[in-house]
Amino acid sequence: MSIEIRRFRSDQSDFAAQMDELLAWEAVSDSGVQEAVTNIVNDVRSRGDEALIEYTNKFDRTSASTMADLELTQEQLQAALDGLDEKQRTALITAADRVRDYHEKQKQDSWQYTEADGTVLGQKVTPMDRVGIYVPGGKAAYPSSVLMNAIPAHVAGVSEIIMVVPTPDGQLNQLVLAAAAAAGVSRVFTVGGAQAVAALAYGTETVPGVDKIVGPGNIFVATAKRMVFGQVGIDMIAGPSEILVVCDGDTDPDWIAMDLFSQAEHDEDAQSILVTMDENFLDQVQASIEKLLPTMEREEIIRKSLSDRGAMILASDKEDALNLINRIAPEHLELSVEDPDSWLPGIRHAGAIFMGRYTAEALGDYCAGPNHVLPTSGTARFSSPLGVYDFQKRSSLVKFSADGASEMGKVASVLARGEFLTAHARSAEYRIKD
Amino acid sequence: MSIEIRRFRSDQSDFAAQMDELLAWEAVSDSGVQEAVTNIVNDVRSRGDEALIEYTNKFDRTSASTMADLELTQEQLQAALDGLDEKQRTALITAADRVRDYHEKQKQDSWQYTEADGTVLGQKVTPMDRVGIYVPGGKAAYPSSVLMNAIPAHVAGVSEIIMVVPTPDGQLNQLVLAAAAAAGVSRVFTVGGAQAVAALAYGTETVPGVDKIVGPGNIFVATAKRMVFGQVGIDMIAGPSEILVVCDGDTDPDWIAMDLFSQAEHDEDAQSILVTMDENFLDQVQASIEKLLPTMEREEIIRKSLSDRGAMILASDKEDALNLINRIAPEHLELSVEDPDSWLPGIRHAGAIFMGRYTAEALGDYCAGPNHVLPTSGTARFSSPLGVYDFQKRSSLVKFSADGASEMGKVASVLARGEFLTAHARSAEYRIKD
Repeated sequence: MSIEIRRFRSDQSDFAAQMDELLAWEAVSDSGVQEAVTNIVNDVRSRGDEALIEYTNKFDRTSASTMADLELTQEQLQAALDGLDEKQRTALITAADRVRDYHEKQKQDSWQYTEADGTVLGQKVTPMDRVGIYVPGGKAAYPSSVLMNAIPAHVAGVSEIIMVVPTPDGQLNQLVLAAAAAAGVSRVFTVGGAQAVAALAYGTETVPGVDKIVGPGNIFVATAKRMVFGQVGIDMIAGPSEILVVCDGDTDPDWIAMDLFSQAEHDEDAQSILVTMDENFLDQVQASIEKLLPTMEREEIIRKSLSDRGAMILASDKEDALNLINRIAPEHLELSVEDPDSWLPGIRHAGAIFMGRYTAEALGDYCAGPNHVLPTSGTARFSSPLGVYDFQKRSSLVKFSADGASEMGKVASVLARGEFLTAHARSAEYRIKD
Repeated sequence: MSIEIRRFRSDQSDFAAQMDELLAWEAVSDSGVQEAVTNIVNDVRSRGDEALIEYTNKFDRTSASTMADLELTQEQLQAALDGLDEKQRTALITAADRVRDYHEKQKQDSWQYTEADGTVLGQKVTPMDRVGIYVPGGKAAYPSSVLMNAIPAHVAGVSEIIMVVPTPDGQLNQLVLAAAAAAGVSRVFTVGGAQAVAALAYGTETVPGVDKIVGPGNIFVATAKRMVFGQVGIDMIAGPSEILVVCDGDTDPDWIAMDLFSQAEHDEDAQSILVTMDENFLDQVQASIEKLLPTMEREEIIRKSLSDRGAMILASDKEDALNLINRIAPEHLELSVEDPDSWLPGIRHAGAIFMGRYTAEALGDYCAGPNHVLPTSGTARFSSPLGVYDFQKRSSLVKFSADGASEMGKVASVLARGEFLTAHARSAEYRIKD
C-alpha cells in the first residue's frame, strides 16, 4: 500500500513558504483547558492533600482515601528492579551507567579570581535542594524518561528527587518503577495531571514543594507548568518529537526508512524529515518505506505521522543542506553521511547531533549517554538538552578590598547619580578613602 | 521623624509564619491585563509594523508615521556616548570593561571525549543568533541595565542584539543610548510594552524576530513575555528588588542604613532586611535610619518601602543566620561580617553575595563586574544571575563506532521493546553486527 509523503526541492520558488507551513506548530491550550487548570491548581494550592486525592480519584479512576495510598515505597521500587528479567535489568543498568558517566562531564564548578588590589570576584555553583520529575503514565510511560530526567538531577547533587507518575485505573508500570530505583529517585507519588504539578509547586501536607519541575506531559500538564513558572523553575514546554535525517545517499535506504519510522511511531504529530542531495535516494527510501511499513506494529501511527507531517527534501548541495538544518533547528539531527565531522562547524542549531551511518537516533534515546530530553519545534535556537546545568544554579561572589572599594566607589557614585539613585551613590561613597 | 520597621526575633514562636508573610510576593496579572496583552500580542503578530506604530503612538503619546521614526541610528548612539561629560563617559566605559572581563570567565566551550571502542560523545556550545533586550523607559531608565543585559550576549558571541526602549512623550535618555553604544547593541527601536515584546518574538516587516528576550519591565511586559515563552526564550520574570544584609554588629551603622536605603529607594515594593546577632546593633541602625532618612532625595519611597516591606531580625547565632539566608534565598546578600569566607560554605541560595564591610551592594549594581540582573523573590533557589550561559546553548554530539553501535544496539533494542517502540528497536538492530 503506497503512502504519500510530501516532496520538496529547495530550489522551488515557494520553498521558504512551504517550510514555514511544514514546520508550523503551536501548542494551544484553549480557554477551557486554561480555566480547568487554573481551578485545579488553585484548589490543590489551598486544600492540599484533600484536593489532590479527590482529583486523582476522579481523573485516574482510583479509590485512594489517604496520601499513603498514593505513595510508593523504596521497597516497591527496588522490588520492581529486582523483579525484571535479567536482560532488561542489565540493559536498564547499562543505560543508567552510561547516562551518568556522560552527565558527570557536565558538572560545573565554582570559580573565582583575585584582582591586583586584592578584590575577589567569582561564582559559586550549588545544586537545587529538591526537584520534581513528571513522568507520564498510561500508554506513554517510558522508563528511559525516568533515567533521563532523574540522573542529571542526581549528578548535580540534588538531595531530594520527587517523582510523580499517574496510574490510570491503578495500572503500575514495573519498568518505570525499576528505572526510578536505578536512577536514585527519593520519593514517588502516583498522581498526575495539573493536580500533580500544583502539588509539586506549592507543596501539600504530604508532597514536599520542590524548586523545579521537569518532564513531559499532556496539555493539562504543560498548561499547569506554564502557570507555576516563577513559583518554581520549569524546563521547556515540549512539542511533538521530530527528526531531521540528512543523508548523502550512501546509507542503506532501509536503515534510513526505519530511522524515520522510529520518530514517527511516537505519535501522529511527530515529524520525520529526510534531506538528501541525491534525488534517486528519495525514491529508494520511499520504496523502503512502502516495503517496511506493513511490517510495523505501529503502522497506523507511522503512516499518519509521515503523511501529515513528514517530508522528503532535495537539497542542492551541502551548504544548502546546512542552511536547512539551521532553519529547522531540529530536535534530533542524524548526519548519515561519509564525513560527519566536516558538517559540524556549519551547524548552529540542533538539540542532538547523531553522526555517521552507525549512529541511529534510537541509540541516543536509550543508552548513548547524552540526554533524550531535547528542545523541540525549533527551540534549539535558544535552548539546550536537559542537563546537569538545569539542576545547578549560581551565586555571584564579590569581595572588595579596601582599595578596590575606594576606586570603584568613585565609578559607582558617578553612575548612580546619573540614574538619580543617590542612596546607591552615598552607600558607595562611604567606602571611598579620604 | 521616626519610622516603624518590623522587628522579629528568630526564636519567637510565630517566626516561621511571620517570615512567610514578610516574604510573600506574587506578581498578579489580572484578567484585564491578560486580555489587553493577548490582544496586543496577537495584533502585532498579524499586522506587524502597522500595529506596532499604532500602539506606540497611543501608549507613548508619540506621532510616528513609519518605523524609521521608531529606530535610532548607530550615529545617534555614538553621539550620545561622545556627548557625555568626561566623568560620566569614563565611568560608563570602566563599568562596561569590568562587566565584560568578568563575563568572559563565564564562556563555556564545546567538549568531547572518545571511548575505548572509538565512540565519540560530547557537547557543542554555540551562541544564539539574535536576542532582544527590553529596557524600560521613563522614570526607571537605567543605563547600567543596558550594560548588564547586552554585554553577556555580546561576550557569548550573539551576532545581533536588538534593543527596545520606549520613549514616553518622545523623551530619549542620553545615558541609555550611550550605554547601548558602549555595550555593542546592534539596533535600537524606541518601542515598549507588550507591543515591543510581540514584535521581538514574532518579528515584523522591520523589527527582526529574535531567539530570546531578556530585560525587566512592568506587568504588561512581564505578561507578554510569559505569553511568548516557547516561541522565544525568556529570562526570569523579575519581582521587586530586595537585599538581605547580615551584619555582626561591627560595621558603621550609617553604612548599613545606607545599604538598606539603596535597595529601598528603587521602589515602594522593594524589600530591605537586616539580620544581626547583636540586639544593640538593631537600635544603632534604627537610629542611623532616622538620622539619615530626612537627608535622602527619595525619602518618601524609602520610608514606605522600609515601613511596608522592611524588617530587622535578631538571629540567635551564625547557624541560625545561615538558615535564614537559605530560607530567604535573597537576590542580594551582603555579608557585612569579619570573616565572610567562613560563611560561604553554609550558603546554598543567593543571587549575589557581597562579602565584607567594604563591599556595598551598590558597587555590584554598576561596576564590580558580576551581573546585576539577579533572581528575585526567592527564585535563587532555582535560578542564576543573568550570564553568558543565558545566550549560549548546547547540542549533544554522538558518533558511534561500528563496534559501539553494535554493542549499544543490543541494549537499546531491549529497552525499546520494553517500551513497545519497535521501530526504535529495529533501527538499533540494523546496526548490530552479525
